[in-house]
Amino acid sequence: MSELSASLQALLASFREGRRLALARAITLVEDEHPGFQAFLHAALAAGPKACRSGLTGPPGAGKSTLLSALAHAYRSRDERVGVVAVDPTSPFSGGALLGDRIRMNELATDPGIFIRSMATRGSVGGIATTTREVIDVMDAFGFEHVLVETVGVGQTELEITGAADTVIVVLVPESGDAIQTMKAELMEIADIFVVNKADRPGADRLRSDILTTLHLQAGKATSGHRAGTAWDIPVLGTVAHRGEGTAELLEMVDAHRTWLEESGQLDRGRRARAERRVREVVERELTRRIWSDAGARERLRSGVEGVSQGHETSYSVARGIVEAMVGQRRIG
Amino acid sequence: MSELSASLQALLASFREGRRLALARAITLVEDEHPGFQAFLHAALAAGPKACRSGLTGPPGAGKSTLLSALAHAYRSRDERVGVVAVDPTSPFSGGALLGDRIRMNELATDPGIFIRSMATRGSVGGIATTTREVIDVMDAFGFEHVLVETVGVGQTELEITGAADTVIVVLVPESGDAIQTMKAELMEIADIFVVNKADRPGADRLRSDILTTLHLQAGKATSGHRAGTAWDIPVLGTVAHRGEGTAELLEMVDAHRTWLEESGQLDRGRRARAERRVREVVERELTRRIWSDAGARERLRSGVEGVSQGHETSYSVARGIVEAMVGQRRIG
Repeated sequence: MSELSASLQALLASFREGRRLALARAITLVEDEHPGFQAFLHAALAAGPKACRSGLTGPPGAGKSTLLSALAHAYRSRDERVGVVAVDPTSPFSGGALLGDRIRMNELATDPGIFIRSMATRGSVGGIATTTREVIDVMDAFGFEHVLVETVGVGQTELEITGAADTVIVVLVPESGDAIQTMKAELMEIADIFVVNKADRPGADRLRSDILTTLHLQAGKATSGHRAGTAWDIPVLGTVAHRGEGTAELLEMVDAHRTWLEESGQLDRGRRARAERRVREVVERELTRRIWSDAGARERLRSGVEGVSQGHETSYSVARGIVEAMVGQRRIG
Repeated sequence: MSELSASLQALLASFREGRRLALARAITLVEDEHPGFQAFLHAALAAGPKACRSGLTGPPGAGKSTLLSALAHAYRSRDERVGVVAVDPTSPFSGGALLGDRIRMNELATDPGIFIRSMATRGSVGGIATTTREVIDVMDAFGFEHVLVETVGVGQTELEITGAADTVIVVLVPESGDAIQTMKAELMEIADIFVVNKADRPGADRLRSDILTTLHLQAGKATSGHRAGTAWDIPVLGTVAHRGEGTAELLEMVDAHRTWLEESGQLDRGRRARAERRVREVVERELTRRIWSDAGARERLRSGVEGVSQGHETSYSVARGIVEAMVGQRRIG
């Protein structure tokens, strides 16, 4: 890897000393993809992942933030430190919620054992999923025992971010309705724990049994691939988060999932899969960055678009020319 | 561009003769990224875009399909042909809706002047937005006067697909609530026409005036950049789609937007911007395809992940090695 600049070396040193300001700066470095951020990540992440990473996902208003707060408080009472990454723009952690909620979150925000970062205002950037995953890595490297990620589970990007977690908690409410139908297959695939929040409302029991039925059907299909004793039975919990009902069970279940991950070898397999995905992402981002920072490629693009507009080229012939100029028929040694 | 295989030449010939089966096969070719699909697109799209492309986006249940049907019927009554691309898995066009809706859509499905393709079951593929835009191109090249695209406007991917349209219609309902708050900024950016459907329900007037207020605030900010007479005033229509109320006004407004696009030069500018984006996408997809189809890169990836797992590499050092091996320090001529 290339050398770190003097200022990034200084940042790395105070990051390793555990200074919050250094953490905040490191996150910004990564978010903005400032020069040298990849070399910084290489140095910061050398020790590998250590934190327990949990992702909470679900529709806006499902109560994810309240559940996240409950988990965070529980970890703090065990004297474990917590990093929070909020990708949901409607989350109180992102400042997008009712005042009452925000006040409740402020309790957390003033605890020096907790660091909260909102990524909600990043806008329509294509690489948001990758960058957010890297921010989670930075929090892990900083030494938090837990990193909690909150995403609004409505799109591909959010699901991809959720894939950065060891334990994915899908939070639904009886009112979720149509949005859930849309995402059902994807949610079933990513969930390690289901929570039906607002379990005191009409339709909660029905939703829980719907989810259980779907899970059983899937488990039936998957049985042949399971080795005895290694499968994780996805639980479907009921909570009333704003009254604290069921949150102790959720905490227990997250801990139990962690134990299962470690004992089954799934944690290691998951981390390897994540490392592979990260390499692929970084390679693809770097290739993209290199090609469009090349003046020759940009000129071919400009004149090519002119050609498309005049009808003697198509996007495909222009693209082919740019790719050939960059890599030719070269093979990787 | 590389030569078309004999079978793709045959496909192209019957595509140009206007055979529906050839269209269906061409779409599958593109969706599945079969070998030669880029050369096929190059040949098929040589004449450039001609169709009026309209995108309808909004939350599930907002009535997008019903409005789309109304537009399609109106175009058919003018004897114009219509291609429909449904990316919303809850859409009746995707088979994901109530029986009554599906029966209504079947009327359209049996009309030889209409071709409907659902892309809803494509699953979690990263490149779905790009591929869907290319399917829209194929429909355009086939000769439809109109291509109508329906997406559920909840995620980044859907918004990106919507960007393939000349005219973007955002459909909301009074109940849209939270989901809309989440997406508001993005929706405001992409909408050419707003429709408040189910305008007979409580809250409809409030929603319309909310949207108008936000639009006026934005217009105020943007004024300095506008030349007099060239701006498009984004209308906010009210419809009760299942009773056909307001759909004639919507049709008029879509036509008016088309006229404005042509007369203001915005259509040409939009198409150039789209061509540039397409070139970028195709280049990036091709680079990705090439690198991971290379045995050397895959071996570096495998051994690199092993190194990460053992703690003497990070994803960043592995990625750097792969990129250097592929492009080195080579400049594009």
